[in-house]
Amino acid sequence: MTKDDVAAMVLAAKKKSGMTWEGLAETLGMSPVWTHAACMGMVSMPEEQARTLVRTCDLPEEAVSVLAECPTKTWDQTVPTDPCIYRLYEIMGVYGASMKALIHEKFGDGIMSAIDFEMYVNRKQDPKGDRVEVVMSGKFLPYRTW
Amino acid sequence: MTKDDVAAMVLAAKKKSGMTWEGLAETLGMSPVWTHAACMGMVSMPEEQARTLVRTCDLPEEAVSVLAECPTKTWDQTVPTDPCIYRLYEIMGVYGASMKALIHEKFGDGIMSAIDFEMYVNRKQDPKGDRVEVVMSGKFLPYRTW
Amino acid sequence: MTKDDVAAMVLAAKKKSGMTWEGLAETLGMSPVWTHAACMGMVSMPEEQARTLVRTCDLPEEAVSVLAECPTKTWDQTVPTDPCIYRLYEIMGVYGASMKALIHEKFGDGIMSAIDFEMYVNRKQDPKGDRVEVVMSGKFLPYRTW
Amino acid sequence: MTKDDVAAMVLAAKKKSGMTWEGLAETLGMSPVWTHAACMGMVSMPEEQARTLVRTCDLPEEAVSVLAECPTKTWDQTVPTDPCIYRLYEIMGVYGASMKALIHEKFGDGIMSAIDFEMYVNRKQDPKGDRVEVVMSGKFLPYRTW
Amino acid sequence: MTKDDVAAMVLAAKKKSGMTWEGLAETLGMSPVWTHAACMGMVSMPEEQARTLVRTCDLPEEAVSVLAECPTKTWDQTVPTDPCIYRLYEIMGVYGASMKALIHEKFGDGIMSAIDFEMYVNRKQDPKGDRVEVVMSGKFLPYRTW
Amino acid sequence: MTKDDVAAMVLAAKKKSGMTWEGLAETLGMSPVWTHAACMGMVSMPEEQARTLVRTCDLPEEAVSVLAECPTKTWDQTVPTDPCIYRLYEIMGVYGASMKALIHEKFGDGIMSAIDFEMYVNRKQDPKGDRVEVVMSGKFLPYRTW
Amino acid sequence: MTKDDVAAMVLAAKKKSGMTWEGLAETLGMSPVWTHAACMGMVSMPEEQARTLVRTCDLPEEAVSVLAECPTKTWDQTVPTDPCIYRLYEIMGVYGASMKALIHEKFGDGIMSAIDFEMYVNRKQDPKGDRVEVVMSGKFLPYRTW
Amino acid sequence: MTKDDVAAMVLAAKKKSGMTWEGLAETLGMSPVWTHAACMGMVSMPEEQARTLVRTCDLPEEAVSVLAECPTKTWDQTVPTDPCIYRLYEIMGVYGASMKALIHEKFGDGIMSAIDFEMYVNRKQDPKGDRVEVVMSGKFLPYRTW
Amino acid sequence: MTKDDVAAMVLAAKKKSGMTWEGLAETLGMSPVWTHAACMGMVSMPEEQARTLVRTCDLPEEAVSVLAECPTKTWDQTVPTDPCIYRLYEIMGVYGASMKALIHEKFGDGIMSAIDFEMYVNRKQDPKGDRVEVVMSGKFLPYRTW
Amino acid sequence: MTKDDVAAMVLAAKKKSGMTWEGLAETLGMSPVWTHAACMGMVSMPEEQARTLVRTCDLPEEAVSVLAECPTKTWDQTVPTDPCIYRLYEIMGVYGASMKALIHEKFGDGIMSAIDFEMYVNRKQDPKGDRVEVVMSGKFLPYRTW
Repeated sequence: MTKDDVAAMVLAAKKKSGMTWEGLAETLGMSPVWTHAACMGMVSMPEEQARTLVRTCDLPEEAVSVLAECPTKTWDQTVPTDPCIYRLYEIMGVYGASMKALIHEKFGDGIMSAIDFEMYVNRKQDPKGDRVEVVMSGKFLPYRTW
Repeated sequence: MTKDDVAAMVLAAKKKSGMTWEGLAETLGMSPVWTHAACMGMVSMPEEQARTLVRTCDLPEEAVSVLAECPTKTWDQTVPTDPCIYRLYEIMGVYGASMKALIHEKFGDGIMSAIDFEMYVNRKQDPKGDRVEVVMSGKFLPYRTW
Repeated sequence: MTKDDVAAMVLAAKKKSGMTWEGLAETLGMSPVWTHAACMGMVSMPEEQARTLVRTCDLPEEAVSVLAECPTKTWDQTVPTDPCIYRLYEIMGVYGASMKALIHEKFGDGIMSAIDFEMYVNRKQDPKGDRVEVVMSGKFLPYRTW
Repeated sequence: MTKDDVAAMVLAAKKKSGMTWEGLAETLGMSPVWTHAACMGMVSMPEEQARTLVRTCDLPEEAVSVLAECPTKTWDQTVPTDPCIYRLYEIMGVYGASMKALIHEKFGDGIMSAIDFEMYVNRKQDPKGDRVEVVMSGKFLPYRTW
Repeated sequence: MTKDDVAAMVLAAKKKSGMTWEGLAETLGMSPVWTHAACMGMVSMPEEQARTLVRTCDLPEEAVSVLAECPTKTWDQTVPTDPCIYRLYEIMGVYGASMKALIHEKFGDGIMSAIDFEMYVNRKQDPKGDRVEVVMSGKFLPYRTW
Repeated sequence: MTKDDVAAMVLAAKKKSGMTWEGLAETLGMSPVWTHAACMGMVSMPEEQARTLVRTCDLPEEAVSVLAECPTKTWDQTVPTDPCIYRLYEIMGVYGASMKALIHEKFGDGIMSAIDFEMYVNRKQDPKGDRVEVVMSGKFLPYRTW
Repeated sequence: MTKDDVAAMVLAAKKKSGMTWEGLAETLGMSPVWTHAACMGMVSMPEEQARTLVRTCDLPEEAVSVLAECPTKTWDQTVPTDPCIYRLYEIMGVYGASMKALIHEKFGDGIMSAIDFEMYVNRKQDPKGDRVEVVMSGKFLPYRTW
Repeated sequence: MTKDDVAAMVLAAKKKSGMTWEGLAETLGMSPVWTHAACMGMVSMPEEQARTLVRTCDLPEEAVSVLAECPTKTWDQTVPTDPCIYRLYEIMGVYGASMKALIHEKFGDGIMSAIDFEMYVNRKQDPKGDRVEVVMSGKFLPYRTW
Repeated sequence: MTKDDVAAMVLAAKKKSGMTWEGLAETLGMSPVWTHAACMGMVSMPEEQARTLVRTCDLPEEAVSVLAECPTKTWDQTVPTDPCIYRLYEIMGVYGASMKALIHEKFGDGIMSAIDFEMYVNRKQDPKGDRVEVVMSGKFLPYRTW
Repeated sequence: MTKDDVAAMVLAAKKKSGMTWEGLAETLGMSPVWTHAACMGMVSMPEEQARTLVRTCDLPEEAVSVLAECPTKTWDQTVPTDPCIYRLYEIMGVYGASMKALIHEKFGDGIMSAIDFEMYVNRKQDPKGDRVEVVMSGKFLPYRTW
């Protein structure tokens, strides 16, 4: 049983039960982005949440240890073609250097961690058309000198 | 005079005067990410802001029309090596599919616009180490059927 | 059942019945380009049209929800070799910058949307040899400043 | 004197005189897309139009023969990053196979020529926001059998 | 049944019967290069020739319509490694610009069509070692101005 | 003085004198394709022809030894974008495997040499539009076994 | 004055004075790997060390602020050809997965930081031939769940 | 039976028995990095250790000769996306030139061997957060002159 | 039955019988490099040797014609990662231009044939460690002028 | 003064004096391949030979230390197009796996060193056309186990 097998089982259970990612996330007591990523096998899920998920989606017991394994995160290194994801890369291409400049201005030399990190996707009502809001938060890590 | 020439002049003026991007943005009455991107030539700057910038940074008059031109936005299509920018791409690689799933769950088939779009970089105090917060907001565009 | 499965079923039904894409499009009350793209799984099909398609092509009921799913649009990022499609890319290579210049001249800084978009392929009679006419129409999106 | 030199001279003359591409095209008695492409050196310009251009933009006499030379058309083979041009490639990625299917349905095996070809960019008024209309027309070329 | 299936059946029939490509081409009343390309599925075969091929090679009736379909021509875009084919690419690398210069000198701006095109491979006796002769013939297509 | 310098001088002399490649080739007693390739520095030119060329084009004496040097032949390994040259690569993509099959059928295992090789570009009159004829001839080289 | 300019000045000063990287590092009170990387502009140098360096190498005063700037770290993303550096990449290719497995076995899911990181290169005497010893030390960062 | 088959059997046995790589390495009398690499098929395992492994993990007898075979070491030549492994490549990108400079300073022209090579991964306790320590040791090989 | 099938059968027979490539080559009366390449399907094997191989390895009769077919030689065009093969490419990278310079100095403009070519791998005893000796011999082919 | 500067000076001196690489190698008491590679800056030259070279070619004194520096060896990682060098890569593609198999058969697991390595290019007379002989010799390095 691989993380891909478990992901397929979660998707099937979700379709059958009509649950949403938001609902599933609430059941686990976690956020929706993290919940989706952990169910799809991109991040490891602590045993406690894995047990809840197995119960909620009626997965086989073995799925607990599979969900808890440290994944080897792989993705296509060419920029994705799907327009919904491509736009996110376009934003990085247009504004990446500006983000770097502002991080250095506010914090000094270092980076925003992608490990000690969290992220939210929200819907904001707007009379001219609703807007997608994405919020990221990562710990600032300063460079060590030695 | 090209957008690169103007960018170099702005950087020199900024270094000499000790202004920050935040300060410059305030003078223009715009946000810091947009201000940096427009000064670096990645987005076009409306004439009004361009005039203020020319006054503030003591740029030659011709810079107004150069800042206002529609740029040809180019960037390296390989994922950047700079660790501060790379982490942003890593986040897209790990969580991109999750963002897509949640956008579709909340809005239906469509995308977050990267054109009708804005973005902020903030510093959040945290006892375990301050955090970088990035907030993006883009209009949702549904697919047309015809 | 995946979008690829449904695409294969549509192609088989189309071959057996002798329908054309134009005819199928008329039955759905939609345009031929959109109809082909939706049947092949490149765009999502609203439930109403999906129901008509399922009836017309005698597809299993489950196909309705599969056709309605938001697809992950993927294509090969290298320029295609098929001469019929390659010529379209060659046109973009030769005239792409000219199109950009004229869009900016007529509209200002912004883009033609590929989401709020439609397209037609027509046959134009011509004594020196008939001609292929392609018409595209996309909403103009101006850049937001903030 | 190269085609790039002439392109730079045309751009400078155009900026100075305030002419538009549409206006320049009218002076030459040609279409705007072709006029831009020929001025930028992407296509060769017949001597008659070249002479008019030289007169209109006050270019040196030698520019006539440079404009008339057969260019070596080169462009970057990776998909361009500029959002205005990228959207055109995205359209080809999403709808390219549909265009091919419809060309074959209407004409048989063959291609739309990119050589015996013309193209227009128009602005269409629309209460929900004006639209960019692109019209392409190319001779259909059937495959020879031998 | 796909074009690849038919290609495999033709190869098997050819091996069993000991026919050559030259012999098969004569039976179809076509040239050997075209015959090989059509049997391998790279070009579409008119119904008349397809019927003869089906009779000669004892293929199932359905193969006629498969042979007649418009193929999607795909090939590897990296230069092939097989030495026999690589040499042809090397020739294009060394002499391609010379061919272009001579085509323009003899015809003006335009191209040799690869659609209205035919090609022959011959064996020429030579006391110092026999030679391979390749003859290509394509219609000249002049660029349209508009 | 490099081969590129000499190529530029030949082009300038040719433009000034109004010579064609065909005429230049006749003066050297060689073929036009070879003459162009040697003048452009893609193949080395024997001293005798180099002396004639230097006399005809009024080049400096040193050009003789530069023309005679063994060149390092380099070209871009991505398929060229220029439509006139691209079509030649497309022909290799569509018919390359057919050429290989026929060479093996007529000669056995081996290749057409690209070194002991010659090539001609001709104009063939045709009532439906003149045709470009390309003729290549290369020695067959059988594989050695040892 | 750029970081590349300063790097060139340090190399020239080092050559003239006969200093080694080890000696220079000692003067700065830092380690040799960090000293080399900071002098070459790959990492930012705190003002204190920058002042000492400027004094030791007799650099212009402006170099202090240049050395202290946050660099944009760029390197070629293809694996380097230089054999001394290539071997380090080969080691990652052969043993990378083993390092990942052992880090997870000893620490759980997370990574070795490349920011809170230090590294040493030592010479170890060995009767069969001296050995290069490389020691890396990076803080372990566990994945955040949210 | 291939090296991949044996690797899968070892992983299954390890999971079932609860052994760690450290424990398995101790049983073989070898180091953990080498043990993992040899079990995964990246390096060949001498017969003696292979016999012990077969006994410990209860593998079929044939596994001994498979483990002892010389592997063809292959890995993806693009930089890996998994963050734990990516950081190691980032370190090479940032500090690779510094390592080369120090190796030449300490040893002269030559390289650290990746063949006569060994490597260790350790956990170092640290009040600010434990650290990963990686130690590599490779024989220095000077360039031969001849 | 393909060349890959035959290669697998030869490898199995070789493993079972304990033959070496040197021994097999002797049986065929050919050299070891050629024998390995022909058994693996990279070069075509004349019928006589194919018959001997079929007898020696107890292969099915059909293998004779498969071994005799002209192969399509394909290999990965990225430089291989296996260290044993990579070193050969590194040698070409470091000394390739030197080999070209010496071939031209000794023979004039032309190449070493890779078709009329043979190669040997020998073990040379050496007190400081035995050495691998590789000997290649290819016919010199001068460029044709025409 | 860089290694490229020195290479240019050596080439100029060689042209002027009419020396060959073989002659220059003899003067230095070294082999021709190494001499060419060292003069072109691909390998470092010991001081003694560098002094002789400086005397023979009448180079400035500073060239001695430049020739002695450890070079950063770089080459294009795409397979070269020059036919004389390409054939060497083709040989590696066709026979690389055979060389690996024979090295392992004769020596066990390990590689031929490209550092402790030497190489010769010879002309062998042959009635059917002279042959290029290339001889490589590299120390065998067995893999370390630990």
